[in-house]
Amino acid sequence: MKYYVGIDLGGTNVRVAKVDEEGNIIQDIIERSHGSTGPKELVRDTIFSMLDRIEKLEECEGIGIAVPGPVDIYNRVMPISNNLKDFEDYPLAGLIEKRYKYKIPVYIENDANMAGLAEALLGAGKGKPIVYYLTHSTGIGGALIVNGKVLSGQMGFAGEVGNIIVRDNCPKHSKYLNAGSAESESSGTGLGRKAKELYGEDATSKMLFDKAKEGDEKAITIIDEMADNMGRLLATIGQVVDPHIFVLGGGVSESSELFWPKMIENYHKYFNGIKYADVAKAQLKEPGVLGAALLVKENGKV
Amino acid sequence: MKYYVGIDLGGTNVRVAKVDEEGNIIQDIIERSHGSTGPKELVRDTIFSMLDRIEKLEECEGIGIAVPGPVDIYNRVMPISNNLKDFEDYPLAGLIEKRYKYKIPVYIENDANMAGLAEALLGAGKGKPIVYYLTHSTGIGGALIVNGKVLSGQMGFAGEVGNIIVRDNCPKHSKYLNAGSAESESSGTGLGRKAKELYGEDATSKMLFDKAKEGDEKAITIIDEMADNMGRLLATIGQVVDPHIFVLGGGVSESSELFWPKMIENYHKYFNGIKYADVAKAQLKEPGVLGAALLVKENGKV
Repeated sequence: MKYYVGIDLGGTNVRVAKVDEEGNIIQDIIERSHGSTGPKELVRDTIFSMLDRIEKLEECEGIGIAVPGPVDIYNRVMPISNNLKDFEDYPLAGLIEKRYKYKIPVYIENDANMAGLAEALLGAGKGKPIVYYLTHSTGIGGALIVNGKVLSGQMGFAGEVGNIIVRDNCPKHSKYLNAGSAESESSGTGLGRKAKELYGEDATSKMLFDKAKEGDEKAITIIDEMADNMGRLLATIGQVVDPHIFVLGGGVSESSELFWPKMIENYHKYFNGIKYADVAKAQLKEPGVLGAALLVKENGKV
Repeated sequence: MKYYVGIDLGGTNVRVAKVDEEGNIIQDIIERSHGSTGPKELVRDTIFSMLDRIEKLEECEGIGIAVPGPVDIYNRVMPISNNLKDFEDYPLAGLIEKRYKYKIPVYIENDANMAGLAEALLGAGKGKPIVYYLTHSTGIGGALIVNGKVLSGQMGFAGEVGNIIVRDNCPKHSKYLNAGSAESESSGTGLGRKAKELYGEDATSKMLFDKAKEGDEKAITIIDEMADNMGRLLATIGQVVDPHIFVLGGGVSESSELFWPKMIENYHKYFNGIKYADVAKAQLKEPGVLGAALLVKENGKV
């Protein structure tokens, strides 16, 4: 049996897991990431000490790291870093490789890509050649996995599908996102903004779903617009990659009974093809750390 | 030296070429395809006889076929066929394989995908890991080539990017295309329709470019809208696959001096990333037949 180590480096927690080749988590360690202290301290005080506690690390095939942002996989760095302070261009993978005298390869990738890889290999996409993973949460991101390999892009921006415009004539809400983009209009953040506009400063995106369930027409209109936006996003991605399956994860996807049927109806309406992809819910609990470990198995290749 | 055979099966002509592993065309035969006579006659009277004339066919590594429409590569058939009569589900690849007593593998793929493969391996995209090929002609289609492999999709509809909506509130012009889709609004066909609306029934898309050059404001507005639509299409594709380069082929791309700078400006405006893909003109004269031959080299794999 071969073993791989995954690291899920988030803004709040670091998770390090030893995983076997069948995807079973053998050992699992979680600590606070202290994202604000900077990379040098985080690597020295947290990541190294966590790795040192992994049993028989020297017998593992390699280490995969999932980070919250795009990754330039050719140079193994994050070209920008909004969620981890000063990680821009920081040689995290190289530093971990250098720490150990035995040769252990280290790969680094975007966390949504790693969640998608795990779902493709072990979760809802298992057995399908072309899997498109979409996370619909605070933000909206995606990952393309073809025959078990993730497409990262020249600079890690493949899958930044939240920026795709799904509706014209919308105001611009963020410096980094197009006006009318899927993320601006239909992410948890976008829905929260719309909830506040309707129900005041304390309102949340969850309130919008509750109100819609109660029959509130304004809330229903917003949820229906979201189902249209998300269906159009699926169709747009479908015309580019024509996957066998879309796997949807993230908090907003949890409210599926309310908008999934309409989202899927709209996806079909906007897609030109003769066979629609399945649309399924993500299945795994910790896809980030699992995907990071599986990246080692796939040799970190696009 | 290894040799491959490419077949470019179009609605008007069939082209069969023997190609060496460096992409040189060694032998080249063209005949009318008589697309209206049906597949049985076309295969028996034209394709078989053309293949029989290929020198030392038995020493070639295989045969690749480029066809004008989506291909289900898993079953090696066209699930629909608009340009070749009765080719829907016709087992062309299997029939060619069976004709020869020696084992010669036969692959089949969409012609835009094959043109993209040729441009990726030998043309404007040579040396780049992720190439996105876009043909901007009568229609609009695309192809994703990652490390020399084409992504075809579950049913051959990857790359049917002409159907992506780039503008809201447009009328619907075709049963198969979204209202406001790139192809409806900005293909040669779409531009021809707009030219006719402005200048009468004899007008063509070319006239639109000529009028714009002369300073006609209505024509300039339409060309500027096209530059916006095409820039938005590039950005949308870019958010899904983040390629190293976009390679643009097709007749409308030839008028590049008029709209390319604005198209590229709009691509940058709508794309969220830290590095833009290069945008280059296609370089090859016969990319279809060349790509079909190269498909053999790549073992016909997605």
